[in-house]
Amino acid sequence: MAGNSFGQAFRITTAGESHGPANVVIIDGCPPGIPLSVEDLAVDLGRRRPGQSHIVTQRQEADEPEILAGVFEGRTTGTSIAILVRNTDQRSRDYGDIKDKYRPGHADYTYDAKYGFRDYRGGGRSSARETVSRVAAGVVAKKIIALGFGGKVIGYVKQVGEIVADVPQPELVTLEQVETLPDGSPNLVRCPDPARAAEMVELIERMRKDQDSIGGAAEIVATNVPAGLGEPVFDKLKADLGKALLSLPAVLAFERWL
Amino acid sequence: MAGNSFGQAFRITTAGESHGPANVVIIDGCPPGIPLSVEDLAVDLGRRRPGQSHIVTQRQEADEPEILAGVFEGRTTGTSIAILVRNTDQRSRDYGDIKDKYRPGHADYTYDAKYGFRDYRGGGRSSARETVSRVAAGVVAKKIIALGFGGKVIGYVKQVGEIVADVPQPELVTLEQVETLPDGSPNLVRCPDPARAAEMVELIERMRKDQDSIGGAAEIVATNVPAGLGEPVFDKLKADLGKALLSLPAVLAFERWL
Amino acid sequence: MAGNSFGQAFRITTAGESHGPANVVIIDGCPPGIPLSVEDLAVDLGRRRPGQSHIVTQRQEADEPEILAGVFEGRTTGTSIAILVRNTDQRSRDYGDIKDKYRPGHADYTYDAKYGFRDYRGGGRSSARETVSRVAAGVVAKKIIALGFGGKVIGYVKQVGEIVADVPQPELVTLEQVETLPDGSPNLVRCPDPARAAEMVELIERMRKDQDSIGGAAEIVATNVPAGLGEPVFDKLKADLGKALLSLPAVLAFERWL
Amino acid sequence: MAGNSFGQAFRITTAGESHGPANVVIIDGCPPGIPLSVEDLAVDLGRRRPGQSHIVTQRQEADEPEILAGVFEGRTTGTSIAILVRNTDQRSRDYGDIKDKYRPGHADYTYDAKYGFRDYRGGGRSSARETVSRVAAGVVAKKIIALGFGGKVIGYVKQVGEIVADVPQPELVTLEQVETLPDGSPNLVRCPDPARAAEMVELIERMRKDQDSIGGAAEIVATNVPAGLGEPVFDKLKADLGKALLSLPAVLAFERWL
Repeated sequence: MAGNSFGQAFRITTAGESHGPANVVIIDGCPPGIPLSVEDLAVDLGRRRPGQSHIVTQRQEADEPEILAGVFEGRTTGTSIAILVRNTDQRSRDYGDIKDKYRPGHADYTYDAKYGFRDYRGGGRSSARETVSRVAAGVVAKKIIALGFGGKVIGYVKQVGEIVADVPQPELVTLEQVETLPDGSPNLVRCPDPARAAEMVELIERMRKDQDSIGGAAEIVATNVPAGLGEPVFDKLKADLGKALLSLPAVLAFERWL
Repeated sequence: MAGNSFGQAFRITTAGESHGPANVVIIDGCPPGIPLSVEDLAVDLGRRRPGQSHIVTQRQEADEPEILAGVFEGRTTGTSIAILVRNTDQRSRDYGDIKDKYRPGHADYTYDAKYGFRDYRGGGRSSARETVSRVAAGVVAKKIIALGFGGKVIGYVKQVGEIVADVPQPELVTLEQVETLPDGSPNLVRCPDPARAAEMVELIERMRKDQDSIGGAAEIVATNVPAGLGEPVFDKLKADLGKALLSLPAVLAFERWL
Repeated sequence: MAGNSFGQAFRITTAGESHGPANVVIIDGCPPGIPLSVEDLAVDLGRRRPGQSHIVTQRQEADEPEILAGVFEGRTTGTSIAILVRNTDQRSRDYGDIKDKYRPGHADYTYDAKYGFRDYRGGGRSSARETVSRVAAGVVAKKIIALGFGGKVIGYVKQVGEIVADVPQPELVTLEQVETLPDGSPNLVRCPDPARAAEMVELIERMRKDQDSIGGAAEIVATNVPAGLGEPVFDKLKADLGKALLSLPAVLAFERWL
Repeated sequence: MAGNSFGQAFRITTAGESHGPANVVIIDGCPPGIPLSVEDLAVDLGRRRPGQSHIVTQRQEADEPEILAGVFEGRTTGTSIAILVRNTDQRSRDYGDIKDKYRPGHADYTYDAKYGFRDYRGGGRSSARETVSRVAAGVVAKKIIALGFGGKVIGYVKQVGEIVADVPQPELVTLEQVETLPDGSPNLVRCPDPARAAEMVELIERMRKDQDSIGGAAEIVATNVPAGLGEPVFDKLKADLGKALLSLPAVLAFERWL
């Protein structure tokens, strides 16, 4: 079945694993004439990149995108776009000890049950490494939304453990607030409430010291969304958003606010 | 776009509104040889039917299903199944006063914005009346799950307002517990914790007296589910379940428990 | 798999067999505001109906359509449309002698191999009876084409056996010419070249007397088609038209003319 | 719309143009455990490559495939496969003179009408260069067919102009006959009837001298096909094969033989 595609009018299809040669996404349904460059892609791919601070996964990777198709003289052609991101830090040696072990909270057992064997070097196709393709496609989607109806999509960390950020006006949160603290230092947890952000970092560091991890919640705000997006009855906007987010490996819940 | 279909291997396509002549569902992908009768359908359609007690919507309707296609000599043929449920209690006169008003929490404004006009007699296609088709298709799905791998799916009310049921072993809840209280009377809120069930009814009645309503949470338990259902990466089981539930008009959140 | 749906922007899903209760089609993607009535549907359903002359299949059926959903106050709502046509002349007694025989050129053997059993009363789902749903959906499609860009689609018999009609200007052929001969009598073979039409009837009658049948070719002309219909690379217009026609039971070849 | 995908259980999605950086295909639905290497891919990509003789297009390109995803330790993983083929001979300088001209029989005008601009260096997405992705996916498909039920698919040229090959037993034609003439020289037109093959080459050379081209017909034979492939009613095998072939730029007709 076609589990590697998402969307209809704007449809993405992805391939790639944590330790294979590359991740690639094909984007179908992007209108012609949208300016698109590797520099555009690099911004969000850079934001996604692990290893940016001591509180996250330590994988180190340049994540340099290459546009393989669908762009001519700097603009989208209207036909399918392909974007490639190579895996440079495969570090498969680090994963050898888990060859015969199923990691809790991962799809290792499921993949063995479903496919009969799996890429033991890591999560393979089930790894969050796959989101590199989603981020690249998201850059294109955000451009269409911005050019098409002045819409903006911004996400940030709302909660870590029991610490809940105070974000009185979600629609006014800026990328600057999410990325940088008032003192100019990087906002490691990307929470726009600086006081809570500091507490969150402290909590994560404490959990880390105990060799544990901690869950949280992200809030995503879309502004200037035109009425009538989505389709009745199964492709309601909330249903498609929910599916998109719940298909991320670590996401276990979704809630729609007005 | 094809917003009226859901699923791939087992795919349902629906049509029908709250005040049109009928609701109909076409089911694609049901294996051949599954016993299927209108009596099978009637059980869950009966459970879904509004107007069964004073605490729910008062629409009165027989909801008698008719199998139009896909069944021969009492068994599914393997080709597409069609099930029809006529709308008998259209009561369009009751809705006349809302012809020019947008109801809060409904899709009235959205439909006007999207389509330019709408069936002002009720929710039209956005009405929860549409779930009659989902319930009919669900009967077929549950038969496949039961016959295919001995699986069972059962749902019940877990929470109303702040009242949370105590259900220590969700996998042992029976349909009998959900439908009937220990004293033999109908379980109006379908909560398998009888003490909480009584409190929930009381709360709903209080809200109703105040011309208000109250939210809640349903818990759905599937047992004997084989490993490997769903497809990486977008069609993960939790993502498809989330989308299915979030496409219901009143559902605003979804959470996966192990 | 979803073999009972066709199309994307305008998508039809069908169910129904030759000897089941009814055929039904759900149409997804029809714009709102298109006038649609059972009378509109009746015209082409009448043209499709077998038993209209001695040279065709003798099945007798009224084929009265019912619109179950998607139309409000005489206009399409923009949400899914459902159209029902009941099978009134099921005549299953006539087919009893073929219960254990596979008819050549039919899908009888294939269905047994694929599904393990079949509706022996006729072709079941493989019967051309299923085209009643396509014709109903075609009426809606032709309305969209006419209202959307003044397009017209007309089909006629171009060839029977070796007899080829002379149609010098296909784009000027009228429905009147296809339906009625110059002398006012019905054009039994629906060939707009009256001389060839007479020869075709004669040939078919001769074949019939010998208990044989004969193939032919239909030509379908679409005018005022806007440039750019279809999508690269797999959904080219010629590819989708080819698939649509080749999915008809009796069609074995497709050819695109400019 | 998703025009760049084909198939359901085995689904391919492609991107790439004649003069962009690369062509890429993502294959969804390949079972796990199928041995797959770049060497496997190279055989058919080599057969597809233009410029192999004086009677075909003179584009020169190595067409070296790279497997980006979906293969681990030489076998398919069951998750999506991605194959990349770079465009090395872009020769865009050669096409400059057609920047403002619409080539007859090409999609140049259609693309301008549909998208507002186009890659004037060649056919862009409409170029037959795109078939490099189909050939790569076809290698995988043929492996599944061979391993799954011992099936074989072979194609050859049946007709060029009025010259029709005599192929009395299509099911016995071998790849050797299609590729090599009895005297050991390459079979330039890939027609397994050597006498007709020679006439075809002569005809093509004559047309070429007159700066003209000539059409033909290919015959594709699949053996050991299991009964029941395809799905009623729209996804009949003949309908899907027809669509696949008619979606090739140069194919204008399709005919099914038993």
